[in-house]
Amino acid sequence: MLLDVLNWRYATKKMDPARTVPEEKVARILAAAQLAPTSSGLQPFEIIVVTNAELRAQIRAAAWDQAQITDGSHLLVFAAWDNYTEARIDALVAQMSAERGGTSEAVTAYYDRLKEMYLPRPAEVNYEHAARQAYIAFGTALAQAAEEQVDSTPMEGFDPDQVDAILGLRARGLRSVTLMPLGYRAAEGDWLAGLPKVRRPLAELVTRRD
Amino acid sequence: MLLDVLNWRYATKKMDPARTVPEEKVARILAAAQLAPTSSGLQPFEIIVVTNAELRAQIRAAAWDQAQITDGSHLLVFAAWDNYTEARIDALVAQMSAERGGTSEAVTAYYDRLKEMYLPRPAEVNYEHAARQAYIAFGTALAQAAEEQVDSTPMEGFDPDQVDAILGLRARGLRSVTLMPLGYRAAEGDWLAGLPKVRRPLAELVTRRD
Repeated sequence: MLLDVLNWRYATKKMDPARTVPEEKVARILAAAQLAPTSSGLQPFEIIVVTNAELRAQIRAAAWDQAQITDGSHLLVFAAWDNYTEARIDALVAQMSAERGGTSEAVTAYYDRLKEMYLPRPAEVNYEHAARQAYIAFGTALAQAAEEQVDSTPMEGFDPDQVDAILGLRARGLRSVTLMPLGYRAAEGDWLAGLPKVRRPLAELVTRRD
Repeated sequence: MLLDVLNWRYATKKMDPARTVPEEKVARILAAAQLAPTSSGLQPFEIIVVTNAELRAQIRAAAWDQAQITDGSHLLVFAAWDNYTEARIDALVAQMSAERGGTSEAVTAYYDRLKEMYLPRPAEVNYEHAARQAYIAFGTALAQAAEEQVDSTPMEGFDPDQVDAILGLRARGLRSVTLMPLGYRAAEGDWLAGLPKVRRPLAELVTRRD
């Protein structure tokens, strides 16, 4: 049950550096991110899976020295498109056409309108929109990690410009938005592990208009 | 399995107006949104559950006349905080303290630094940050809907200013970011229902740095 695993997971503060997440679990976590819905199906992001020790040490230094980045076995870097481009949108339409045996006029017209709307906008507006989509996939991957009984830490506390430079992202039209170390909680030393999960009460979070 | 339900779900285009999602399923979908992780645990959003026919008709008119808004039985409106404020951050710290039997100096210092960082920023920057968090909860709620075998349609195609006005959100410090009609797919008339799901291949979406 998804609710059970959402209750089980927490933002792990101390991971056991001796344990490694099996690759088949990492693959399913990535598959969940791939299946996450995004606006117009564009999936305007990429995920960089970093296990390289030197790269992770550099990223840790750009992320307030958060130890999970190197104590975990894998670091997922979610990077959003820096802009929407004609080529990126056309690639999706071409893939749809190939996988669905053609595209209807309505679908073609939809993506034509999308290009008319997106392409003249400032890159920053398109990047912000792309980043939001990456967050849907980020949340879905966090849920899948929990389903795999893999610990993870959602992280925004890092210098995106530095991480972009370390991984060469800007040259690829990408900007880092979130980090997700994967690993296993340490038996000791995690101040958050024993504490109850705090969530705003539903009475505050939800309003009914019946 | 989460991957199974992610494969099952799709952005339903035609819902059966005769069917109603049971309230216990809606409650679990909201619980999943509540459990979704957010930056510093702030949960900077609210969800408005709209069943009222007149309100949904108005929202549909502000959303390109998308029929799922009125053909579904419930409409979830995800609305992000328009800004971070001292009161909003202090409320979380107070709740943490109450539910965890006090707060450590480290936690208090963390949220003091957060206020120093967030409160001087332009409202728009804080709103964009809050909106991203709402997208994590939005994705988590979509996954839970699928787990409940409830159909849903993630929607960004609406005029947020109009929806804010219809629901009186701005006066409450909220701005609508996404819509999620809940219901059941119609037996006929959904052009997307029979088509294969299109997702960018993992080879394109994922890069390894080992």
